[in-house]
Order: sequence, then structure tokens, then C-alpha cells
Amino acid sequence: MTRHRIAFLNGSLRKDSFHGRLGLAIIAASNDRLAFITPSLDLPLYDPDLDGSDTPAWTAFRDSVRLVDGILFGSPEYNRSMTGALKNALDVGSRPYGQSIFTKKPAAVFSGSPGMTGGFGSNHHLRQSCVFLDMPVMQQPEAYWGLLDDEKLAADGTVNDEMLAKLVTGFAGALADWYDLIREGSGQLAGDPTQR
Amino acid sequence: MTRHRIAFLNGSLRKDSFHGRLGLAIIAASNDRLAFITPSLDLPLYDPDLDGSDTPAWTAFRDSVRLVDGILFGSPEYNRSMTGALKNALDVGSRPYGQSIFTKKPAAVFSGSPGMTGGFGSNHHLRQSCVFLDMPVMQQPEAYWGLLDDEKLAADGTVNDEMLAKLVTGFAGALADWYDLIREGSGQLAGDPTQR
Amino acid sequence: MTRHRIAFLNGSLRKDSFHGRLGLAIIAASNDRLAFITPSLDLPLYDPDLDGSDTPAWTAFRDSVRLVDGILFGSPEYNRSMTGALKNALDVGSRPYGQSIFTKKPAAVFSGSPGMTGGFGSNHHLRQSCVFLDMPVMQQPEAYWGLLDDEKLAADGTVNDEMLAKLVTGFAGALADWYDLIREGSGQLAGDPTQR
Amino acid sequence: MTRHRIAFLNGSLRKDSFHGRLGLAIIAASNDRLAFITPSLDLPLYDPDLDGSDTPAWTAFRDSVRLVDGILFGSPEYNRSMTGALKNALDVGSRPYGQSIFTKKPAAVFSGSPGMTGGFGSNHHLRQSCVFLDMPVMQQPEAYWGLLDDEKLAADGTVNDEMLAKLVTGFAGALADWYDLIREGSGQLAGDPTQR
Repeated sequence: MTRHRIAFLNGSLRKDSFHGRLGLAIIAASNDRLAFITPSLDLPLYDPDLDGSDTPAWTAFRDSVRLVDGILFGSPEYNRSMTGALKNALDVGSRPYGQSIFTKKPAAVFSGSPGMTGGFGSNHHLRQSCVFLDMPVMQQPEAYWGLLDDEKLAADGTVNDEMLAKLVTGFAGALADWYDLIREGSGQLAGDPTQR
Repeated sequence: MTRHRIAFLNGSLRKDSFHGRLGLAIIAASNDRLAFITPSLDLPLYDPDLDGSDTPAWTAFRDSVRLVDGILFGSPEYNRSMTGALKNALDVGSRPYGQSIFTKKPAAVFSGSPGMTGGFGSNHHLRQSCVFLDMPVMQQPEAYWGLLDDEKLAADGTVNDEMLAKLVTGFAGALADWYDLIREGSGQLAGDPTQR
Repeated sequence: MTRHRIAFLNGSLRKDSFHGRLGLAIIAASNDRLAFITPSLDLPLYDPDLDGSDTPAWTAFRDSVRLVDGILFGSPEYNRSMTGALKNALDVGSRPYGQSIFTKKPAAVFSGSPGMTGGFGSNHHLRQSCVFLDMPVMQQPEAYWGLLDDEKLAADGTVNDEMLAKLVTGFAGALADWYDLIREGSGQLAGDPTQR
Repeated sequence: MTRHRIAFLNGSLRKDSFHGRLGLAIIAASNDRLAFITPSLDLPLYDPDLDGSDTPAWTAFRDSVRLVDGILFGSPEYNRSMTGALKNALDVGSRPYGQSIFTKKPAAVFSGSPGMTGGFGSNHHLRQSCVFLDMPVMQQPEAYWGLLDDEKLAADGTVNDEMLAKLVTGFAGALADWYDLIREGSGQLAGDPTQR
């Protein structure tokens, strides 16, 4: 069985964010099929004028994500879109031109909110960026986890709600399957001289 | 080498549409890696009240698409979104509940326009629907083919423009690769008892 | 006080649709500030090849909507976007080129669903079309009314749920204010020779 | 004639960005109907944990934008969405809860690119945020200005291209009209006791 190295990118900078907790819950539910790193998205704003210069936080972020097999995005919704922090991390990671750290890495997206819409707007804006970044994104199950609160979701990632626990477990299994599928498919093609 | 059976769904009902021509051009460029059917999208509007009754045009559409391995969407832009005809075909094909003809079928989207934006809005609205429909969609190359006219693109699908010809050929190869990848990946997983 | 003539366009063709009921509830809550017509969206699919010919259902639809002062859209979500029926009505109404029935008419959008996301995807796809159609759309309150069921919302449009009733009433007042604002602003400008 | 005070928010941090040049061109074309400030978007990333503490750059940004009558967004496209810098500025300006600097301010969006799609994806993601932020956005003319280069658009904002100059001038006039309309409409309503 393949164990995938995954970068969990959490769009919230809050210390105690729901998306951080959900990331922990997914990690716990992944049954060792996934090994996670959790790089910080607290990065200087991307500015193309700085492409040639040394921005250590950008370099560290790029170097850590470059090594992983896939990405898990936790994407809170601010103002009906991704957070500035997450969007900026996409911009930093995608540059300089031709050196994107995201290309071809399989990805999955979850979003949540205290309200009912569960970050739908953020989730789909992020998916649009993933098209350009050439990341195959898991389609189902979609994860718009609404009505989040401290009772359902403890600070250490424990899920105290049957429905949410079931969704998280299903999501964790499906994303490991998705990373498997993309890896197996890509590997088969690479090894098959009649294919290309 | 696998030959994939593909349904080409053209969102335009015009007899002589650019998207129909582009579909022909992609078929011609696919080097027999893809075999196409081209079901008509001139379908009665979907109405859930009719789910139980017999609507022959819906049944014929569903039956033809159910058999294919993947989907190629040609998605013109009307009013910054998909055409009503294409959106309706998605609605018809996705129902009745639990019997969607689209589930898990790999897909690719191209769009074009006489103007410059190349159907960007339509292309991405369709991609959002594909998330719900659980169709893994090819991310790159994106195809927003702008500035289309009769000179570049003849009625029989001949492409008389070097740049467009190159884009069409690249797209045709990439989509066959994408169908390969999803098939191989799915097949590997299905045959590997340690995976699930 | 101005009474605005409004076309309520319901994207669902179901006889007993939630969006039809919500439309009735909004009408009831509008305190006679709004007078509604409710044209059917059960229209033949738009096809540019038919622009010159006579399609009576298109003509009737266009003629009825052309006369109103503003539009109220009830936009159910099918497959994370507008229904095919609603998108088709936009296409029919926007054509032939230069004769759109929608231009400059103020609009408002509500969406709902039995689930939690309340038609968010449909709501915003429709808003993107409204940009092209040059319809100023009310921004707040947004209306994503989730968890709809027969108990909360009777077939005759009676709302048996305090929270939903409050949202519907707030929405009805705000949209009348929005139509007022656009009319007053446009009228002032038209009457003021220093403005243009 | 009203002269509107506008904040021009440029999503690019590049010193010599095309969107900065386009902003200059629009200012020049506005015939003194608009007075601009151009606050920097080089702001620390928004983090809700810092809502109570003093972040001087946030305060300065909020204080400068709070005073204006309307917003002009120049929205480059990075990875098919807004730049991280612009999204972050929306997040900073919209908070703390209940103190958004954007509410009810009329807005307009232009986007451009060296390629053909003219920032379409960025433009519409920003519009989705404006719904939540309760900013009425000008719908037409849309501005997706493609094929930008140094020849057409000099570093000082001079437009050396007839078509682009015409688009910029039309856009500048329309946005002044839009700010007029929203102001006049709002003023009329505020002064009319029968309206609310």
C-alpha cells in the first residue's frame, strides 16, 4: 500500500481555526494512508518584482511543498472567496514562471463555516485556480461543512458529532483513493511505451 | 492501445456552429485513439415532475451517453455561461436521482468565441457542474479559443490557422492521455485488493 | 409611492416548486409596492438559426417581460448551476442581438434548497449572466434559503417558520427599495443636463 | 456636477504594473468628474486573531478608504482569480465584523492581461466578493482588456492604441455615471419619507 506525502494547506491564519481542526480530523481518519506536512501560509505577499531576489519565507514554503505527492486544501470563506492568505500562497507557489510547485499534484478541497453554506464560494474559487495550476482535484465527495461550532469540533480535532464524523471519514478515504488513482494512472502511462 | 468511446456534446444547436467544427477538428486530430458519438442536445426541458413518465428524447439521449467511456464538451458562451441547451442536457442526463449517466466519466471542456475571451465564463461554469456530477475533468491544456472566424475554421472542421491547429492537436492528444490516465488508475485500483 | 411592475422568473418547471412558493411569499410580503407577472419559462431551446423565424412562445415571453420595470429571479440549483430552463430563458430573452429584453432592468435573485447550501452555486452563476445582460442586481440581502421543506413552506406560499418569514419579508422590502433606487437614480440623471 | 472621491485599488504590487497604468489612464479620461486616492495594498495578511490589536497598516488603509464615495478595482488575474494582495485587502477592509469600509459604496472593476482572456476569471471572482460586501457594481461596460503590452500602454498611463483608448474613455464615463446614479438614487430615497 502506498503512503502518500501530503501538504495540508489551511487558508486560515487563526491559531484555533475550524479548518485546522478539520485538517487534524482528516489526518486522524486517514488510517496511515497519508502522511502530512502543514506548512504555514503566513507568507509575504507575492510581488513579481521580487522574483529574482531572495525571500526566505517563499523559498521555505516552495521547498517544503515541492516534495509532497499531493495537496489537501482547507479553504475557509472570507467575503465569498478564498482567504487572502490562501490565494497568496497559490501565487507564491506558482511562481517564478515555469517553476510552479503545484503542477500535476492531485488535490482535494474541503471548506466549512459556522453558517449553512459551508464555504461553497471559497471552495469553487479555489477549484478554478486549480485548473490553471494543473492539479487534478477530487470531485466527490464535495465538502461544504456548515453549522460548525466548538461543540461539534474540539480544538484538538476531535469530532463530537456523528454526521460530521461520518463525512470526515468518508472524505479522508476518498482522498486517499484519489491520490492512489492519479498515481497509478500516471505510473501506468509512464511505463507504457504505446501510450504516447 | 485503448480506443476510448467518447460522447461529444456540443452546446450549440446552430447547424454550422464553431463548436461543432472544433469538435470535428479534435476528432480528426485524435489519431484513432478516440471514437466519437455526437448525440443531439435538442432535448425537451428537464422537469422533475416528468421523472416517472416516458420522454423518448430523454431516454434516447441517456441511453446513448450511458455507454461511452468519457465526455468531450464543446461549450459556447451565451450570456457569460453555458448555453441553455447544454445546461439542460446536464440536467436531463443527471436524473432521475441515482441514475446519472455522467458519474465517474472522465471529461474535457473546450470553448471558443469570435471575441477574445474564448468562452471563459461558460467553460468554468460547466466545470463547476462537473464537480457535482463527479466527472474528473482534464485541467490542462485549458481551451479558450478566441477570435474564431470562418477563415480559420472551415465548415467541415478544417483548421486553416497554424496556431489554432497546434492548439487543437495538443488538446486532442492531452484528452486521450487523460482518458487513459483515469481508466488505468481506476483499473489498477479495482484490481488491487489492498487499496480499499 | 411608485409601484413597480416586476416579472417573477422561476427557474423550476415543477408545478409545486419551492421557488414558486417563495415567489408567492415575496409577493405577499411586498405590501403592494410591487406588481408581479409570472411568465412561463417552458420555452423552446434557443437556437440562433431561428432568430429570423417566428417562434410564438419566444415572442410571447419577450413581449411580456419587455414591459416590466424589473426582474425577480427564483433560481433553484441543478448540478451546481442554474436550471437549464432558466438559462434558456436568459438566452431567449437576450436575443436577437441588440433587442435584449433585460437591459438596464434592476434585478434580484433568491435561491433555496432542501439541503444546506441554499442554491449558492446557482445564485452566483445567474449573477454572472446579469453582468453581461446589464442588469443591476441587488447585492444584499443575499438569499440562500436552505433546509426548505413542506412544513416551513406550504404549497400556497404560506411561510410557517419564523426565521424564513423574517428573511422573506426583509428580502421583499429590500428589493422594492432597490428598484426604487435604480429608478430614482436613473430618473435624476436623465433629467439633469449637467450630468452627461 | 458632483465630483466623486474614489479609491483606486490596484491588485498588482508591481511598480510598473499594467493595471496601475490603466488606472492612470482612467483617471486622465475622467474629466475631473472623479478625484482619486490610490492606497497601497501591500498590507499584512488578515488574521482574525489580530482584530483587537493595533496593526497600523490596516488602520491606515481602512481610514483612507472609509472616506471615499466609491471604489475602482484594477484586478489582474493570477491563477484564474484575484491576486492574493487584492483578496487580502478585501479581507482587511471588511473587518472587524460590522465595521466594513466597503458597505454600500458603488464600485467598478476592470481587468486586463497580456493574453487574450483579459482577466475574466479575476474580474468575476471579485464581483462575487462585492455581493457579500454590499457594493453595487457597474455591470456594463465590462472591461476585459486583453493583449496588453508596453507599446499600447506606456508606463505613465498614455494609451497608444485607438481601440484601447476608446474603451478606457467609455469606461471612465460610464463609471462616473454609475457613481452618479447610485448617489442620486440613494439621496432621493433618503429624502423621501414615503419610501421606507
